[in-house]
Amino acid sequence: MADDMSGHPPSGPGHALERLIFFSDAVFAIAITLLVIEIHVPELHDGHFSDLDFIAELAQLTPNFIGFFTSFFVIGAFWAGHHRAFDCARHWNPRLIWPNLMMLSAIAAMPFFTAFSSKYYGHRVPVALYCSWLLLTALLNIRVVALVTAPAIAGEEMTPARRWAIRQRGIGVALGAATAVVVSLFAPPFGQPAIMSIPFWMLLLRRIGPRG
Amino acid sequence: MADDMSGHPPSGPGHALERLIFFSDAVFAIAITLLVIEIHVPELHDGHFSDLDFIAELAQLTPNFIGFFTSFFVIGAFWAGHHRAFDCARHWNPRLIWPNLMMLSAIAAMPFFTAFSSKYYGHRVPVALYCSWLLLTALLNIRVVALVTAPAIAGEEMTPARRWAIRQRGIGVALGAATAVVVSLFAPPFGQPAIMSIPFWMLLLRRIGPRG
Amino acid sequence: MADDMSGHPPSGPGHALERLIFFSDAVFAIAITLLVIEIHVPELHDGHFSDLDFIAELAQLTPNFIGFFTSFFVIGAFWAGHHRAFDCARHWNPRLIWPNLMMLSAIAAMPFFTAFSSKYYGHRVPVALYCSWLLLTALLNIRVVALVTAPAIAGEEMTPARRWAIRQRGIGVALGAATAVVVSLFAPPFGQPAIMSIPFWMLLLRRIGPRG
Amino acid sequence: MADDMSGHPPSGPGHALERLIFFSDAVFAIAITLLVIEIHVPELHDGHFSDLDFIAELAQLTPNFIGFFTSFFVIGAFWAGHHRAFDCARHWNPRLIWPNLMMLSAIAAMPFFTAFSSKYYGHRVPVALYCSWLLLTALLNIRVVALVTAPAIAGEEMTPARRWAIRQRGIGVALGAATAVVVSLFAPPFGQPAIMSIPFWMLLLRRIGPRG
Repeated sequence: MADDMSGHPPSGPGHALERLIFFSDAVFAIAITLLVIEIHVPELHDGHFSDLDFIAELAQLTPNFIGFFTSFFVIGAFWAGHHRAFDCARHWNPRLIWPNLMMLSAIAAMPFFTAFSSKYYGHRVPVALYCSWLLLTALLNIRVVALVTAPAIAGEEMTPARRWAIRQRGIGVALGAATAVVVSLFAPPFGQPAIMSIPFWMLLLRRIGPRG
Repeated sequence: MADDMSGHPPSGPGHALERLIFFSDAVFAIAITLLVIEIHVPELHDGHFSDLDFIAELAQLTPNFIGFFTSFFVIGAFWAGHHRAFDCARHWNPRLIWPNLMMLSAIAAMPFFTAFSSKYYGHRVPVALYCSWLLLTALLNIRVVALVTAPAIAGEEMTPARRWAIRQRGIGVALGAATAVVVSLFAPPFGQPAIMSIPFWMLLLRRIGPRG
Repeated sequence: MADDMSGHPPSGPGHALERLIFFSDAVFAIAITLLVIEIHVPELHDGHFSDLDFIAELAQLTPNFIGFFTSFFVIGAFWAGHHRAFDCARHWNPRLIWPNLMMLSAIAAMPFFTAFSSKYYGHRVPVALYCSWLLLTALLNIRVVALVTAPAIAGEEMTPARRWAIRQRGIGVALGAATAVVVSLFAPPFGQPAIMSIPFWMLLLRRIGPRG
Repeated sequence: MADDMSGHPPSGPGHALERLIFFSDAVFAIAITLLVIEIHVPELHDGHFSDLDFIAELAQLTPNFIGFFTSFFVIGAFWAGHHRAFDCARHWNPRLIWPNLMMLSAIAAMPFFTAFSSKYYGHRVPVALYCSWLLLTALLNIRVVALVTAPAIAGEEMTPARRWAIRQRGIGVALGAATAVVVSLFAPPFGQPAIMSIPFWMLLLRRIGPRG
């Protein structure tokens, strides 16, 4: 697919990059799809099968659905950022392997933290843990993005403006996660909603950052 | 793979499109295969291990198998439609990412709705919820297909007739799902079978639609 | 990857074939890896943590491990056959989609039948069901292989000898599965071991079949 | 993607190799991501929802998290080694299929051994079993790497020095796993930490091995 990406012989460096991207995509896709198996089908008992009984049981799953969709879009955002960053990669470097695996291990653990914070919705420890894990993932991601957008991998055609545009998205996610950690410690039920500050931080960074 | 799809430099726009397709395929494949883990092995008790005991226990799993195969072919149909639509894509556009992720989140949640409606087979709320979720998925899918078949992404060689042929399949799925929602409210046990009206709607649309 | 496989324009027919292969590989890989989650970690109780207690508990998992490895290599054999058959495909045909999805739905259900026959090891109904499901999968697979190796998809360069060589493997799997079904009805504990007759049937077919 | 890898016609040998790599990547990615579903969300009871209660429950999951990260990086290391070895592959050979499937079956079973040794952390049998399984995986991996780096598959341009560099990593993993087996028999709690001797063995092999 990318055999000729960097002018190297077929199945050489370009192909190695391709396989790393492929493996990462598979881990993102599995983690995002496994989220649903943490939502358990409610147990109703004989004689309590009216429409209202079902609706009452489903209402109790609300935190689980909020958790599912929050994590789906958080993991989706990390995938989109990974996609955007690796789209610039032109050279293979084995030093990418371990930082990328570390970031993927944080993504792969997300279903646990999602299930934990959904089950004990609004309690300080589970919410703060979820937000802290998101912050850790964001920091590991910043490191991967920094490597991929550096001249050694991204190649010469990468302008400083484009590099900054890609990196600032990763920094915006980390700032949003840090905001959510702080909020979750003082007002647990507002911790996860505070993740929605991510676009605000991205906008702010775009305003104050250097331009191309 | 598709580096040269749109005449752009290697690993540019064509490759970005490729990776989106790849990620979507992985989510479809995982959701479709996870369906089976919601079918639990029956628990028989010592002294009740005759052939008839086993057959009686298996008979109780009938709704689960109907649910498994229904969802397998529903998700398979969405995959086939996605395949057909993206086969026309020639240009990359980052605006595809979020509508596609939203559609995938609906697909990824299907194993839950399948398990819920299989466990309480024929009850109004679980069946109507399954059919409504299918309708939501179909609507999110229509949006993705509309984007992919629009000139900005599909390119110039796409004829209006082919565009309509692809889009009408998505509309047919939505009409079939809407039929199933209505049926499930009034006659729950016939809700899921009403999904089989999809080919009828597709045929109808093919008759009334414009021709190439 | 295969854009130029059949001399068609990029991202046309060759690419559609590629995506079908990719999706199939993902389903095979997920079904094969999900097998392990049906092996549950044994529950030991306080005061019973000696080496012998652990070994006794593990010994009880023997049928589960036999089931895991049997199904791993059965699914692996179907994957290898799919790989061998599609390696000859040169033209895309949308008629491949549904027969392939039907075969994949049989593969995706294997973890359930594996878990069921492992839990009730040696009982007639679970063993015969496992072997019958294998037979059904083999028959659906024969249909896919027949389509892929037919001139419309495999192209002109496919010799009758090579076509027969590929198809006879699929027939050998079906004959081995049929043998296992018969054995399982009369001597349940020998049903799954009878799957090992597959290579014998393949050898026999190679002897009696036409040669290139 | 690799159609022209070895100068063969499109979709021939190069493509067959590609599909084997792809399937392996998917199995690695699923096994690595399934590890998390063995970490169960703790069950707290009404009236015991203080911050300290949550922290106490999480503290009990420490072995599960150690197990998750150990196996994540062990499977990640096998993936990285597979990546490095297949990066040299230039020719397709069907004899690769079964040794590769055997190695993948060992990888796919890792989530079970991880969950078992995490649940009974520090007990001899579960720890020794985990380390022995790792050793078995390492031996099966050595066989795959030997096949892939042999002249029949790797092609002429592979130097003996590079072949040895790739193979010695696999041998280093096996020596580290063997060390862990021995340690786990005599001092179970130190069995899994002894896996960290892998880089030491790799370094030693690099010192004593032939040079390019």
